Amino acid sequence: MTKTFKKRSQKAGMPPGSLVHVGNHRDHKITLSLLEYDEKTFIQEDDVSVENCLKRIQTPLMTWIQVNGVYDPNVIASIGGRFHLHALILEDVLNTTQRAKLDTYQDQVFLVLRLLKYSEDTHELQDEQVSIVFGPNYLISFLESGNDFFLPIKERLRQGNNRLRIEKSDYLAYALLDWIVDQYFFVLEKVDADLDHLEEELLHSPIPATMKKIQSAKREMIFLRKSIWPMRDVVSRFQRLEPPLLSAANQIYLRDVYDHLIQTIDIIEGFRDVVAGLMDIYLSNINIRTNEIMKVLTIVSTIFVPLTFVTSLYGMNFEFMPELHKTWGYPAVLAVMFGLAGTMLIYFRSKKWI
Amino acid sequence: MTKTFKKRSQKAGMPPGSLVHVGNHRDHKITLSLLEYDEKTFIQEDDVSVENCLKRIQTPLMTWIQVNGVYDPNVIASIGGRFHLHALILEDVLNTTQRAKLDTYQDQVFLVLRLLKYSEDTHELQDEQVSIVFGPNYLISFLESGNDFFLPIKERLRQGNNRLRIEKSDYLAYALLDWIVDQYFFVLEKVDADLDHLEEELLHSPIPATMKKIQSAKREMIFLRKSIWPMRDVVSRFQRLEPPLLSAANQIYLRDVYDHLIQTIDIIEGFRDVVAGLMDIYLSNINIRTNEIMKVLTIVSTIFVPLTFVTSLYGMNFEFMPELHKTWGYPAVLAVMFGLAGTMLIYFRSKKWI
Amino acid sequence: MTKTFKKRSQKAGMPPGSLVHVGNHRDHKITLSLLEYDEKTFIQEDDVSVENCLKRIQTPLMTWIQVNGVYDPNVIASIGGRFHLHALILEDVLNTTQRAKLDTYQDQVFLVLRLLKYSEDTHELQDEQVSIVFGPNYLISFLESGNDFFLPIKERLRQGNNRLRIEKSDYLAYALLDWIVDQYFFVLEKVDADLDHLEEELLHSPIPATMKKIQSAKREMIFLRKSIWPMRDVVSRFQRLEPPLLSAANQIYLRDVYDHLIQTIDIIEGFRDVVAGLMDIYLSNINIRTNEIMKVLTIVSTIFVPLTFVTSLYGMNFEFMPELHKTWGYPAVLAVMFGLAGTMLIYFRSKKWI
Amino acid sequence: MTKTFKKRSQKAGMPPGSLVHVGNHRDHKITLSLLEYDEKTFIQEDDVSVENCLKRIQTPLMTWIQVNGVYDPNVIASIGGRFHLHALILEDVLNTTQRAKLDTYQDQVFLVLRLLKYSEDTHELQDEQVSIVFGPNYLISFLESGNDFFLPIKERLRQGNNRLRIEKSDYLAYALLDWIVDQYFFVLEKVDADLDHLEEELLHSPIPATMKKIQSAKREMIFLRKSIWPMRDVVSRFQRLEPPLLSAANQIYLRDVYDHLIQTIDIIEGFRDVVAGLMDIYLSNINIRTNEIMKVLTIVSTIFVPLTFVTSLYGMNFEFMPELHKTWGYPAVLAVMFGLAGTMLIYFRSKKWI
Amino acid sequence: MTKTFKKRSQKAGMPPGSLVHVGNHRDHKITLSLLEYDEKTFIQEDDVSVENCLKRIQTPLMTWIQVNGVYDPNVIASIGGRFHLHALILEDVLNTTQRAKLDTYQDQVFLVLRLLKYSEDTHELQDEQVSIVFGPNYLISFLESGNDFFLPIKERLRQGNNRLRIEKSDYLAYALLDWIVDQYFFVLEKVDADLDHLEEELLHSPIPATMKKIQSAKREMIFLRKSIWPMRDVVSRFQRLEPPLLSAANQIYLRDVYDHLIQTIDIIEGFRDVVAGLMDIYLSNINIRTNEIMKVLTIVSTIFVPLTFVTSLYGMNFEFMPELHKTWGYPAVLAVMFGLAGTMLIYFRSKKWI
Repeated sequence: MTKTFKKRSQKAGMPPGSLVHVGNHRDHKITLSLLEYDEKTFIQEDDVSVENCLKRIQTPLMTWIQVNGVYDPNVIASIGGRFHLHALILEDVLNTTQRAKLDTYQDQVFLVLRLLKYSEDTHELQDEQVSIVFGPNYLISFLESGNDFFLPIKERLRQGNNRLRIEKSDYLAYALLDWIVDQYFFVLEKVDADLDHLEEELLHSPIPATMKKIQSAKREMIFLRKSIWPMRDVVSRFQRLEPPLLSAANQIYLRDVYDHLIQTIDIIEGFRDVVAGLMDIYLSNINIRTNEIMKVLTIVSTIFVPLTFVTSLYGMNFEFMPELHKTWGYPAVLAVMFGLAGTMLIYFRSKKWI
Repeated sequence: MTKTFKKRSQKAGMPPGSLVHVGNHRDHKITLSLLEYDEKTFIQEDDVSVENCLKRIQTPLMTWIQVNGVYDPNVIASIGGRFHLHALILEDVLNTTQRAKLDTYQDQVFLVLRLLKYSEDTHELQDEQVSIVFGPNYLISFLESGNDFFLPIKERLRQGNNRLRIEKSDYLAYALLDWIVDQYFFVLEKVDADLDHLEEELLHSPIPATMKKIQSAKREMIFLRKSIWPMRDVVSRFQRLEPPLLSAANQIYLRDVYDHLIQTIDIIEGFRDVVAGLMDIYLSNINIRTNEIMKVLTIVSTIFVPLTFVTSLYGMNFEFMPELHKTWGYPAVLAVMFGLAGTMLIYFRSKKWI
Repeated sequence: MTKTFKKRSQKAGMPPGSLVHVGNHRDHKITLSLLEYDEKTFIQEDDVSVENCLKRIQTPLMTWIQVNGVYDPNVIASIGGRFHLHALILEDVLNTTQRAKLDTYQDQVFLVLRLLKYSEDTHELQDEQVSIVFGPNYLISFLESGNDFFLPIKERLRQGNNRLRIEKSDYLAYALLDWIVDQYFFVLEKVDADLDHLEEELLHSPIPATMKKIQSAKREMIFLRKSIWPMRDVVSRFQRLEPPLLSAANQIYLRDVYDHLIQTIDIIEGFRDVVAGLMDIYLSNINIRTNEIMKVLTIVSTIFVPLTFVTSLYGMNFEFMPELHKTWGYPAVLAVMFGLAGTMLIYFRSKKWI
Repeated sequence: MTKTFKKRSQKAGMPPGSLVHVGNHRDHKITLSLLEYDEKTFIQEDDVSVENCLKRIQTPLMTWIQVNGVYDPNVIASIGGRFHLHALILEDVLNTTQRAKLDTYQDQVFLVLRLLKYSEDTHELQDEQVSIVFGPNYLISFLESGNDFFLPIKERLRQGNNRLRIEKSDYLAYALLDWIVDQYFFVLEKVDADLDHLEEELLHSPIPATMKKIQSAKREMIFLRKSIWPMRDVVSRFQRLEPPLLSAANQIYLRDVYDHLIQTIDIIEGFRDVVAGLMDIYLSNINIRTNEIMKVLTIVSTIFVPLTFVTSLYGMNFEFMPELHKTWGYPAVLAVMFGLAGTMLIYFRSKKWI
Repeated sequence: MTKTFKKRSQKAGMPPGSLVHVGNHRDHKITLSLLEYDEKTFIQEDDVSVENCLKRIQTPLMTWIQVNGVYDPNVIASIGGRFHLHALILEDVLNTTQRAKLDTYQDQVFLVLRLLKYSEDTHELQDEQVSIVFGPNYLISFLESGNDFFLPIKERLRQGNNRLRIEKSDYLAYALLDWIVDQYFFVLEKVDADLDHLEEELLHSPIPATMKKIQSAKREMIFLRKSIWPMRDVVSRFQRLEPPLLSAANQIYLRDVYDHLIQTIDIIEGFRDVVAGLMDIYLSNINIRTNEIMKVLTIVSTIFVPLTFVTSLYGMNFEFMPELHKTWGYPAVLAVMFGLAGTMLIYFRSKKWI
């Protein structure tokens, strides 16, 4: 089941800026990749050392450093130290249970973003924290896992001949943000398919296990809401940044991301209504089934209980029961009983019970 | 069933301004129609080429180009290129899953509107995206389908002798917007009739299939809300535009559209309450039916089970049961049983069960 | 049942300012009444012609024209033409399905108000649109029906010696608004009595028909909300008007109307809670009744089914059943059965079922 | 039951400022009490005449006049006339169905406050309107009932040696307001005890009458909300008054009252959740009881119906039923039946039904 | 059960600034501890007297006084008197039922904070009030209980070599606030574990007692909400303080606390949804169980009631019942009954009831 709450209490009570990793431990090696580019030049290096990164920044090229893996406080601290990142930024990079947010530190912008992932095997949602710091001509991105999630962006950069190569770090940050938001649509389509499947199942064979699935879907909705809602605030604040943090010409692109985000929120709200509807269907189905069971019981009892009374009547051992000695007694009783049963059946049909 | 969610994931991850059609593919031919007018002149041409359109703009007349069909990125790109439309406008025109919105680009205003349609056959709601860009003396409207939805407006223009011919593109944009909002009332009346019909059905024969219809109606409400709510923001932002984008004298007309829109939202909110009420009626009806079935079972059982006990009593084979040998035994037992049954019936009547 | 939605689609797609009556057609004759007054003079004329009205305005007296009936576009158009009313005002006067609103047009203020009416016969709510336009020293009021609703205000004017005669059109508009809001209290008291009656009925004889009444009450609440909520905005905007549209000394009176309006909204919100409570009572009553029916069935069955088993046991035809041949057999069985039934009754009493 | 709605329609349609008492008629005599004080002087007089009051105001002392009873328009009008109170103030003083509010009139502040009372006998809530007008060095308080509710404040004034004697009317108004808000805590504790008692009752003997009590508690919550919520606005506006209406040093005290008020609102919101929870417990209890009743019926029927079938089988009168003639027939059948009943009991135990 | 409401009515009606302890009485001795420090110096004294504290303040060092226990008005009054604390501050320190809040008094900032505690034994939540007043170079903290909750902060101060020793009282106040908010995560993890446990219990053995636990969990959520929500306002107002109350460089740290607080609120909102889900599961489980019980009853009755009718039929004592005298009569009837029972079983299986 999608868990809405990650432990972070080991962090409690430490001085601010204490560098402790909070989140699932991942044992892949931490690697750095470095891209440097301007309109004409493009250099890409993988597995570059922290020392090299620092040197690169002094070149006039736009520099993008990507850190794959954030579980080692020492690595993060040394990167932070060399790029003059505020202690609170480093703390937030390491703590992967953050809400999406945007903080500004003088000439740096710090973004915490939530990346959504869907597991095809377990049909579960997961999220991963992506932290981005950018200054005038450099951007550092921190990924929780070792997967190079931003490969398509790098490819666009390599191919060149587009706005990415001309613009600075604000546009690159926008591109990364846009890419993350676009992934939401992928995930939401998967969730949509799962919900359709659940609804199908519910209409055809509503068993108690379905209740658990509905509850699980409900939690997924809470999880989605919790992950995506704060993103709205992030994009809206990004959009309101002013030069030099964000160039005026690029604001228009953030408006576009904002629109997409609002669309995902609309979709999630729609899902919530669907899940609430599933719950209603489930509950009413239980009642309808009880109702049907009752009908069968009532029809059978209402027909046979009076008949049994009649037969029981003539099973009495009184000496003086004149009917018992007539030849027509037995057929007459049978006829009466047929009539009774028939009347009942007509009554039930008139009530639409059968 | 009205689907609240269109796929758009094929669009994910492309650079901003990538021209890819998102939406249902339509295979009608893309056609353009061109209108040029001022107070005295009126020229209308259908099936005009993109090249001719561009030339026309340089005339001092007011120009309205309507593009029927947006599935072909090439056509849209060439139009966009010649009218200097921003890449994001073209992207939004092609992506027909947009929320209604209004964006301003220097001397251009870009509107995405949702047009509601009701299918008489399937009793289903659909919507279609209408995109409008207008500058000082030209307006371009993009329709998803090939139906010339704005025919009545063109007719009003042709007849002349009204404000449309005197005013510029802001008033034309208003007229198109007003026309779209007016259509909402048509659609809402159809939905109202469907809801009345559903309620009627529910009160007379509440069957499980009704639950599905109620759920479907609930989704329609979500769909309506989702389509129309963002329009409010659009009109309100349109209203706040300033000259030269919107002349002061025309603001008053947008206030009028805004009032109409609020009215449609009021109606939809009313519908939502009605649908919620239907659900309540449905659920309480199931319970009432179970209750009625129980009553029949209880009445029959409560009358005949004790009677059967009495008859069964005198069916016992004990040697020494003095009553069995009395002449009055049988009639006495019958009398007792009649009395019992009568008492029960009186009791049930006093409880208003029969 | 109070209908929350009036048809207005015949209006859709017309150019703005098209004069078409939307609403229930009323066949009374349209009449005008004219009042002219200042502190010393008071002239009242009924059935005055439009031409006379126009002439009067040029006198230095304060002029109040009341139009009873708005179904005839020609009459409204000729009045509008002579008083220089904006086309949108005339359109709104004719369309009697408007929300309450306040629009300003240079030196004119246009108010659409909703007047609530309660039918003693059908216990139904209705509303009627009252439109008011006022300029510096004239006020025109349009009533949907032919009933002279503002008679008491006219009487106060006639008697003179009060603020109405000293003040100008803003105070008169306030007086009409205040009078309309005061009527709300009358109507709400009627609704309150109906709800009390419904609750009484529900507690004493909850039948399925009650469900329909509850749903109907729920719709009435929606109707009330929809009619009165927008009035709040109207009064609040009226209050914020500035001289010359509203004199500073009169603002304080609008604050008073606003307080009354908030009180009516409070009452309606209270009603909504009451109706929701009725629904809860109704649903729980059905369950309680099912519960009671089950109790009777269970008590009767649980007592007689085992007893019938015992009698049935001794109705078996085995040759070797020693008990059957004992003299004490029958009384013993009777004693056992009495004991069994007694035990059951004690058990049921301990469970508080009887 | 606490009634949420007092009649005030007799007031409808009167000119603003019409002096009509709206509320429960009280037949105690209207009395005035007068206090005059500064840091050194303190004069208290009860049953003082209106004329004397007027004279006192001209002394340089701070003057507090308290009017016990507001049912007589003449008395109120003569007080109002002499203190130059606005017609709307007098109207509001007489109409005891007002929401709490604060209005400013030039150099006067007018407060309508709701005082909560709890009847120990009927466990019902009531409220009473307290109106306060204060100017630079005088304060007039109007109480609905004849009980001198502000006795403790007067005692504090008499004892002197505190801020009350030093400060002017704004601080006195604060003290009265604070005293009223403090009473809310008393009342809320009583309501809390009632709710605890109701919950206890519900868990031990949930009978239909409980439903009525829950509904009644729900209405009390609505009543509390309706009385106390507007007070928040009153205090918040009082706090924002500026000198000379409120001295800067006293603003801090109103912040304190505001905090208390927020606390009472928190408590009421908590109560609402408790009442909603009671409703849930009640409804689920009905279902659980139905469930238990069903269990008893099912267990008894499921055991005895098959057994009765077996006995009935050997009650048949076929000539050729070999078992009937065996000596072991009867004991064998008894054994089979014991076995059957035992199996059933084991089955029910495995299902945790017994 | 977590009680949402503490008595404070004994406080009602006292003059503002009356020093009365409101809250649970605690009988530990009130002790004071004193810390004085700057970047180089660090002095810590426990059990210091009020007189010494006063003297210390005149040293140029930063001074932190912690008061453990607030039940004695005299002690609080003498501390307050010597530190020139406003009467309302002292009143609030003594009244331990306050909402969290931040008030500013010229050069002092007064914070009321709620500290959450979780009892491992009773699985209950409790809270405690922490009041903090700070001025330019001193901070006084008041704890309700005698436990030195801020020990880790003192340890950090003692170790030195960190921002705490360099900064002034605003940073110390931040550190204490941060520490309190961090504790919330501890408590929420405990609550999370309890909810998981409750859900487990619910799915495996839903008994009526569970209802009580769910209600109790619901109240805990209300309690958490009530304690933590106002903290948001406190931190947000703290953040907006300006020098000299809060140095610009420290604002960034409060933004961090604010983020943490929002995270706790997110978690609590998630819990609320979980609890609501538990309620739904519980209610649907009762219905499912009733449904299952009904199935058993219906299956047994529907099979045996008709069979018993058949046997009863041949138990009749008519003289002329030809079947009774046939040798094949008994086996034929047995065969018919087997057939009937079999048909029923197949029918039930087709309905998925068995």
